[in-house]
Amino acid sequence: MDKVQIFEFIAEQKTAFIASVNEQGYPVMRAMLAPRKIENNEIYFSTNTSSNKVKQYTQNEKACVYFYKRGRFKYQGVAITGEMEVCTDQKTKDEIWRFGDKLFYKQGVTDPDYCVLKFKCRTAEYYCDFKVETIEL
Amino acid sequence: MDKVQIFEFIAEQKTAFIASVNEQGYPVMRAMLAPRKIENNEIYFSTNTSSNKVKQYTQNEKACVYFYKRGRFKYQGVAITGEMEVCTDQKTKDEIWRFGDKLFYKQGVTDPDYCVLKFKCRTAEYYCDFKVETIEL
Repeated sequence: MDKVQIFEFIAEQKTAFIASVNEQGYPVMRAMLAPRKIENNEIYFSTNTSSNKVKQYTQNEKACVYFYKRGRFKYQGVAITGEMEVCTDQKTKDEIWRFGDKLFYKQGVTDPDYCVLKFKCRTAEYYCDFKVETIEL
Repeated sequence: MDKVQIFEFIAEQKTAFIASVNEQGYPVMRAMLAPRKIENNEIYFSTNTSSNKVKQYTQNEKACVYFYKRGRFKYQGVAITGEMEVCTDQKTKDEIWRFGDKLFYKQGVTDPDYCVLKFKCRTAEYYCDFKVETIEL
């Protein structure tokens, strides 16, 4: 697996998982919808400014983004470690916004509870059929 | 969601996700097969003694175990934080072993590369349709 193949693989997945480290030093994870944008080693998600993950990333930017695919005969997973930035600037919010988001954010694209998570990819661990490879991104 | 319902929910899922904190302080996650046993607030997995996760849990027991279900109209997820113990004692290995494991561990149930991860559940965060509840386990 090279870097291009890693990004192709993650672009195909419909669910992403993200992990943070909480105030007590425990890792915490949750499922997310697929990324809004993947570009220049960065992965963008939309989320609620009031969520626990935003609080956790504000205090500790260390993060993991995970994608997996479980087929009948093959299991593939990619765990990428890096830093998560919470973006509340209007330029980034405008860029990541989609029409349907209006359902969740009543005030629209300027809603203070809508923000963007920007993940900087550093190192990927690719798992396939019980083997693991490390790829610097 | 109460404690009983949380354990019922996780017993139904075919994939578990576990997170650790690595040597550099980054959270790392991976998919696992369903737990081998769930009992007395503890969740058991089988794994390779030589794996990165065993190294990470030996250095830092703080862990998260996550389960989710994504239906057509409903998304549910449970993230449980707690401590992960690496068990290499023969009694625990005997108890968790299944016949099919012989495929992966040539030396059978005494194979030094076969070990058990025992997770002690502390706190669950249950996510359902954009709401979150915290349950002490």
